[in-house]
Amino acid sequence: MPAPANPVSYAFERVLAEVRAGDHPGNVADYIPELAKGDPEKFAIAAASVSGHSYAAGDSTTRFTIQSISKAFVYALVLAEHGVDAVLTHVGVEPSGQAFNAISFDEQGRPANPLINAGAIVTTSLIPGTTADERLEHIRQGLSAFAGRELHCDETVAASESATGDRNRALAMLARSSGALVGTVEDTVEAYFRQCSLLVDAHDLAVMGATLANDGVNPVTEQQIVPAPVARDALSLMSSCGMYDHSGQWLFNVGLPAKSGVAGGIVAVAPGEYGIGVFSPPLDPVGNSARGVAALRMLSEEFGLHLFRHPARPVSPVSAIETDPHTATTTMRLRGSLDFVAAEQVAYEAVGIIDASGSRTLVIQAEDVTEASNVAIMLLHDLLTRARDAGIDIAVIDPDGVLRRK
Amino acid sequence: MPAPANPVSYAFERVLAEVRAGDHPGNVADYIPELAKGDPEKFAIAAASVSGHSYAAGDSTTRFTIQSISKAFVYALVLAEHGVDAVLTHVGVEPSGQAFNAISFDEQGRPANPLINAGAIVTTSLIPGTTADERLEHIRQGLSAFAGRELHCDETVAASESATGDRNRALAMLARSSGALVGTVEDTVEAYFRQCSLLVDAHDLAVMGATLANDGVNPVTEQQIVPAPVARDALSLMSSCGMYDHSGQWLFNVGLPAKSGVAGGIVAVAPGEYGIGVFSPPLDPVGNSARGVAALRMLSEEFGLHLFRHPARPVSPVSAIETDPHTATTTMRLRGSLDFVAAEQVAYEAVGIIDASGSRTLVIQAEDVTEASNVAIMLLHDLLTRARDAGIDIAVIDPDGVLRRK
Amino acid sequence: MPAPANPVSYAFERVLAEVRAGDHPGNVADYIPELAKGDPEKFAIAAASVSGHSYAAGDSTTRFTIQSISKAFVYALVLAEHGVDAVLTHVGVEPSGQAFNAISFDEQGRPANPLINAGAIVTTSLIPGTTADERLEHIRQGLSAFAGRELHCDETVAASESATGDRNRALAMLARSSGALVGTVEDTVEAYFRQCSLLVDAHDLAVMGATLANDGVNPVTEQQIVPAPVARDALSLMSSCGMYDHSGQWLFNVGLPAKSGVAGGIVAVAPGEYGIGVFSPPLDPVGNSARGVAALRMLSEEFGLHLFRHPARPVSPVSAIETDPHTATTTMRLRGSLDFVAAEQVAYEAVGIIDASGSRTLVIQAEDVTEASNVAIMLLHDLLTRARDAGIDIAVIDPDGVLRRK
Amino acid sequence: MPAPANPVSYAFERVLAEVRAGDHPGNVADYIPELAKGDPEKFAIAAASVSGHSYAAGDSTTRFTIQSISKAFVYALVLAEHGVDAVLTHVGVEPSGQAFNAISFDEQGRPANPLINAGAIVTTSLIPGTTADERLEHIRQGLSAFAGRELHCDETVAASESATGDRNRALAMLARSSGALVGTVEDTVEAYFRQCSLLVDAHDLAVMGATLANDGVNPVTEQQIVPAPVARDALSLMSSCGMYDHSGQWLFNVGLPAKSGVAGGIVAVAPGEYGIGVFSPPLDPVGNSARGVAALRMLSEEFGLHLFRHPARPVSPVSAIETDPHTATTTMRLRGSLDFVAAEQVAYEAVGIIDASGSRTLVIQAEDVTEASNVAIMLLHDLLTRARDAGIDIAVIDPDGVLRRK
Repeated sequence: MPAPANPVSYAFERVLAEVRAGDHPGNVADYIPELAKGDPEKFAIAAASVSGHSYAAGDSTTRFTIQSISKAFVYALVLAEHGVDAVLTHVGVEPSGQAFNAISFDEQGRPANPLINAGAIVTTSLIPGTTADERLEHIRQGLSAFAGRELHCDETVAASESATGDRNRALAMLARSSGALVGTVEDTVEAYFRQCSLLVDAHDLAVMGATLANDGVNPVTEQQIVPAPVARDALSLMSSCGMYDHSGQWLFNVGLPAKSGVAGGIVAVAPGEYGIGVFSPPLDPVGNSARGVAALRMLSEEFGLHLFRHPARPVSPVSAIETDPHTATTTMRLRGSLDFVAAEQVAYEAVGIIDASGSRTLVIQAEDVTEASNVAIMLLHDLLTRARDAGIDIAVIDPDGVLRRK
Repeated sequence: MPAPANPVSYAFERVLAEVRAGDHPGNVADYIPELAKGDPEKFAIAAASVSGHSYAAGDSTTRFTIQSISKAFVYALVLAEHGVDAVLTHVGVEPSGQAFNAISFDEQGRPANPLINAGAIVTTSLIPGTTADERLEHIRQGLSAFAGRELHCDETVAASESATGDRNRALAMLARSSGALVGTVEDTVEAYFRQCSLLVDAHDLAVMGATLANDGVNPVTEQQIVPAPVARDALSLMSSCGMYDHSGQWLFNVGLPAKSGVAGGIVAVAPGEYGIGVFSPPLDPVGNSARGVAALRMLSEEFGLHLFRHPARPVSPVSAIETDPHTATTTMRLRGSLDFVAAEQVAYEAVGIIDASGSRTLVIQAEDVTEASNVAIMLLHDLLTRARDAGIDIAVIDPDGVLRRK
Repeated sequence: MPAPANPVSYAFERVLAEVRAGDHPGNVADYIPELAKGDPEKFAIAAASVSGHSYAAGDSTTRFTIQSISKAFVYALVLAEHGVDAVLTHVGVEPSGQAFNAISFDEQGRPANPLINAGAIVTTSLIPGTTADERLEHIRQGLSAFAGRELHCDETVAASESATGDRNRALAMLARSSGALVGTVEDTVEAYFRQCSLLVDAHDLAVMGATLANDGVNPVTEQQIVPAPVARDALSLMSSCGMYDHSGQWLFNVGLPAKSGVAGGIVAVAPGEYGIGVFSPPLDPVGNSARGVAALRMLSEEFGLHLFRHPARPVSPVSAIETDPHTATTTMRLRGSLDFVAAEQVAYEAVGIIDASGSRTLVIQAEDVTEASNVAIMLLHDLLTRARDAGIDIAVIDPDGVLRRK
Repeated sequence: MPAPANPVSYAFERVLAEVRAGDHPGNVADYIPELAKGDPEKFAIAAASVSGHSYAAGDSTTRFTIQSISKAFVYALVLAEHGVDAVLTHVGVEPSGQAFNAISFDEQGRPANPLINAGAIVTTSLIPGTTADERLEHIRQGLSAFAGRELHCDETVAASESATGDRNRALAMLARSSGALVGTVEDTVEAYFRQCSLLVDAHDLAVMGATLANDGVNPVTEQQIVPAPVARDALSLMSSCGMYDHSGQWLFNVGLPAKSGVAGGIVAVAPGEYGIGVFSPPLDPVGNSARGVAALRMLSEEFGLHLFRHPARPVSPVSAIETDPHTATTTMRLRGSLDFVAAEQVAYEAVGIIDASGSRTLVIQAEDVTEASNVAIMLLHDLLTRARDAGIDIAVIDPDGVLRRK
């Protein structure tokens, strides 16, 4: 039987074709000559699931510089290194309402967030290392771990960024004068230019995103790259600030944490499910890949990826209830994912049945429960306690330990 | 047996006590005399699940004016009335990076979003009605439907707001001069003041939030108040702009769509699960209820409510696989919630088993599948098609129709 | 013999012709239909001296609405009415660095200055009167007194301004909410629209400017319209803020206090000498009459009007010194305008001569002194005191009392 | 007889005493340790007239660093070097409405004006020189020429400024990224720090100001330091932008072009008359010397220095008119300074007398005319032409050539 990747990749092919056929005008970034060489016809979509499987369509192995997408991952590395409280003294997490290269510092002298240039440079300054080379190597290894392969810097692009990088140097200097940036401006900025010049493809972005989707564990290498809370923080940040001054509209329309880069890449993340990488160089007026945005919007709608989509109404978490009047035993067979709502249904149903049937024994069969949230477990244990207090015998069949208190 | 609400309410009681004991300084809003009368000691937490059950602790029936919390719900009413595209021509959805009463209009003349005053007033202007009374009545009925009981306006507070409301009148006038607001300034502003003066309690907020959590259906009255996509849009907006210029930090720390009001209320929503209402009048410097923020942060951590928390690792969606070599039949028993990742696991596992066993018949037992996402259904149907193409007979046992294409 | 006005009018004719021939692109204001009717070919220059003589060229009797030029004169009326300290609590005197219709309030809640719309509206609110009609009548009479003839309002333009005046209403409302504006918004704004719609011609503007140039005395009617210090304050303001966000460049290039209006008028003032009115409807991108600016720049250069032009080096203020050795008497004949520098020259020269000649009597002949500044008089009296203290007899021949202490 | 300087110096002493006795709270700048050492009790006033005489009171020989006062003089040097058009492509001349260290660039990428830090640094970058030392030496020589003595840099202060100068480096970098600054950032900024650290006393500032008052000629050394139009441009700039975001109020209250420095110095200029230097380290909240501002305001009022003070009403410029009926000759004796208004009076009077008397000869006696403006000369020559055209003989007695066409 053929490999099962097809339906997703087929869907991606169709999205590529529809977006290509649509009207999504954009211009390849040209503020440095190297970027202007980007081929406007290249277009790719790739995804990687938290199970480690990958899907792709289009030019998914064409390499391009990661640019601002690096900001989210370097921020994660820095959070893992120093802890969130220490990092928050240097850079905030608020959307700035301004352009990516805005001079945006809050009243504490912090750049608004790590995804605008000023904040990204401060973030890079927090990477361990005393020289630009040391910092860059630290970053390169970290982002390579996210991608699951060795990434390399396009030194030509980095040199071009550096040659035209006075505004970024100025932002770094302002950050140093406000106390947000500690260290050498020039080393930090050089490391930053080279971090932005790391070469990736759409597949790499998908795996990097999947690592965030998967609690910081790269699903391909199965290596823990950053702790789970750090992955969560990175996703929060990408949700509120990831798409420049288009972030609110993005959350509205697409509803996925994401980050774009000026070379045409975008990474988007469906938490707990997969990472998506798209690539198409022409940028819309806000600075996001025009076709990339269109593709992700279409994927979000078709695949129901929006964070706030309501999941299909669940059938009851209780698949069967049987009461044996002879043994005065009620058996409830539970199934599926038990969240607050499901546990609440179980609890109410159990109380009703026991009261009605006069059973003296309650058997909970949990073999088909796939997962249970903290609050669901709390509710169920409360049910059991109250049942025991009422003199009812309890048996829980939970071979996977899904209902154990954490 | 006693009612099952206890463990949640007990948890709420504990949070109330811990937050009361902590240091969360704040001041009761005093820009109008009526608000200054708010009792700083009042403190309540309430929740309502999408199943319609409620939980509460503290002063959950103390009434207060809804204030800015109304903005999110009136926006939902307006989206339901006019459609999102029409509404977007009047007011944007970007965080402004500025204070709630900022003069923040984008280059199209639109207020930045419906949750700052300028945008909220424009939103109110889109409510049907030719007089302030008509508009207010429309809003009052709409918000009452969200709450599941008749809400009433505190006319004393409304009069006080009106008496000191010149800045809001000016914002309305600016919005009219930019073309965002169509209609009479004075009527709109009066309706707005009275909308902000509707009286609610923490329980009301919980039910209102639960209605958004529940695809726009009030889980208590079971009435559809706004269409599901509108509820999703309202939640997106609350995520990016709900907590004034603290929205990024809020998403970072608490990770729930929310909206606060100057009288001390906050509504927060766990999509698909429940709504939460908290109430405590003293405000932090940003203008959010100081204890309310602390309580929600604690609840989010303890109950694992953050949008980007990774759910507990699921056990396999396949609870049993059996191959009968005599009949050359493989039976896969599926369970739980099938999302992309789960469906992908099923598909890979099925292909492997069939190839290894040489079975000619595949039976899928889906009785214990509680829900399935679009992309999961797409993946499974692709699996079935490919199996059929490979000459394998298929039987799907799906009494609830969970795997039917939508 | 023919009237002596010719050389100035001839110079004006030449400037008109040269500017017409030059490239000074502009567009007639069209934000209200009535203004768009302005004839782009009309062009006028007029001047009125502090002696009451007038000069004109071009369409100097074509009437147009005074628009923002009124702001400077209404401010003068308000200063005369309430005193500068009281007025400064309502509106500042700083250039805003922003456009005329900017929302520019300082940290005290005051509009930046009376020449941006927000400040002008606050200024109009300080005009006595309880209705729009009363205020307008007060303003109309005041500006008529400046012009030396009865001015009338173009009610069609005023109605058109009112119909499109929401932004100004919003500015008024913001000013009221910040405490700068006291009174009824609607009445104030209506009075303001009609104040802007008063009809003047270039000659009127010249006389109005000459009144400021002449210490507040209309040189034609010889009536004191505002006190001298108020005229000085109005000129200071016009110097720093008169030409919108082009005021610094204007002071640099033209060097005259001035104020422009959107109908194409500009008034400029050479303090102590004359007022100039120009008129040409097409506006440059900053909003000043394009040809008007060019004409005033040319006039300033040719006539040496720039405030900081150095006056031609004066010849000695001492026209003759004679010492009669027989009577031991030194006679100094002074002439011209005695400022600090001239008086200093006289003092040093007198001391030198007396010491050298041994004269016992000093005669100062001041018949040809035309004026003397305070500090000059102080210096001369000190000279006389020291001479007397040294035993020298003094005689001052000062039939006009020019050297008397003030 | 004693030296005549006394009355001015006495007046200065009195002003010093009154200001000392008044309430003018301020704080010595402390953003660098060296400035914090400034003695808050030091207080000086000095003046120098365009005749080269000097007056002083208080600590007029106490040295302090020139700081931002240097900006106006370095701007003059740069204008003299490159011409105004070239310099305007790098830095504007508009008040910024913002603080001295604001990040204020116009849409052409130019700093708003040369008196805010960003603009001053760009100005310094336009000083010839390829190293910081070369630039500084050029500046030091230029400012020494303005002061009439060799100035020296306080290297301790300069080093301290450099050590804390990241914000200025950032401003320089931003200016380079916008194209306004051409050259090496670090060299320019170092030259700027040392330019600000040149040591002067109040007397030096007076002479420097007198040089601007005197058409660019140092009245003590009689050397032309900058061309007359450059001096005028520097004064225009100081009028609109000299006192930071207090410039409008300053022009209103004091009415003199001026520039202040953070070490407590202020230079003010009465064009064509004298320069004034004041010194007192404690600064008001805007950053200007608190006592210095008070002293200059008092001097302006007492000495009538305000640019827009109306000069004392002149007596007639015609001191005597005699008509000899026998010779049919009218003789007019003119006196004083002939500006437009005076010439106009002469012209009207002459026409009237000639018409009334029937004289055939007009004799103009100009021995007592001290100066005449261009437009006055134009008017008088027109009078003579018209008289000649009417058949009248003309004789002008003008031994000093005051009435000759320029």
